[in-house]
Amino acid sequence: MVVISGPSGVGKSSFVKELLGAGLDLEYSVSATTRARRPHEADGRDYFFLGRDEFSRRIEAGDFVEWAEVHGELYGTLRSETERRLMSGKNVLLDIDVQGGREVRKAYPDGVFIFVLPPSLSSLEERLRGRGTDPDERIRLRLDNALREINLGSEYDYAVVNDDLPSALRRVASIIVAETSRVSRRLPMKST
Amino acid sequence: MVVISGPSGVGKSSFVKELLGAGLDLEYSVSATTRARRPHEADGRDYFFLGRDEFSRRIEAGDFVEWAEVHGELYGTLRSETERRLMSGKNVLLDIDVQGGREVRKAYPDGVFIFVLPPSLSSLEERLRGRGTDPDERIRLRLDNALREINLGSEYDYAVVNDDLPSALRRVASIIVAETSRVSRRLPMKST
Repeated sequence: MVVISGPSGVGKSSFVKELLGAGLDLEYSVSATTRARRPHEADGRDYFFLGRDEFSRRIEAGDFVEWAEVHGELYGTLRSETERRLMSGKNVLLDIDVQGGREVRKAYPDGVFIFVLPPSLSSLEERLRGRGTDPDERIRLRLDNALREINLGSEYDYAVVNDDLPSALRRVASIIVAETSRVSRRLPMKST
Repeated sequence: MVVISGPSGVGKSSFVKELLGAGLDLEYSVSATTRARRPHEADGRDYFFLGRDEFSRRIEAGDFVEWAEVHGELYGTLRSETERRLMSGKNVLLDIDVQGGREVRKAYPDGVFIFVLPPSLSSLEERLRGRGTDPDERIRLRLDNALREINLGSEYDYAVVNDDLPSALRRVASIIVAETSRVSRRLPMKST
């Protein structure tokens, strides 16, 4: 279980997309959300887009590993999505916020937790403004949340600065390869 | 501080040689030993070859980070060798036995400890015999020591099986890159 988090605007979605294509045998666990679908997004590929009522019903049914309200919308990880992949021996990639990461750590304590950092706060603000989709107060809200997320990021195992996408991706790939060599994860050596 | 250990006969010296040439900004810390120089070895490059008296004198002077008796000979890491490199901000590569690794862990608790494993015990015996330099009882002694080392290797952070040299080297390179991204090693993010 590989968990990637990082503040909004850090370029995490292109990061995750590239990582999935990097031959690391990672499968993306699609999150569920109540937020509106953006034009380029597809249901079941980018998110499972659920109505608020259905989301609440599934919270009560215990269907989520974690769920949280972020920017006024609900996001969550469906247990069915992660379990199905883990049971078949796959590495699962989760792209979630830090609050969610905390919950996932409780469910999967031997997960690998990677936090993606912006090179600086001003670069983060530039990216959020450059997206051009959000009004000013929305950007301020996102920046405040980003600051809180960055503080919580210190609970993660690894921090990778996304200053240059290819080199940041190489670092994350190295982390995943290295973790498979940790003594605590290895099976005993064959005796013959 | 990167510490590489592994049983005699696991192919560690070619491993270390290749690793130093892999562009990882690693500097080799040359160990001191009382054992006889082999024909292809150079004093100060492969080891500092010391007489038993001088070695003992330097133990008493506190010149060693660690020292140990292995196969009847003394081996040790000179503090002057590691400190000089670490002070100038280099990554230091130590190639030592597991007993020595324990001592180094005490002196450098944030070091990265990597254990190199043979693909199997029979492959290890083959390598030791194939070397053709040692009589039978010597090989048995080395195999017994290898078994003890492999058991102690579970105290290390990482275990890498040397089944295929290039892929084992890629794994170690990934470990070193990944460790530089650990949150516990990172400086705080720039705030502007």
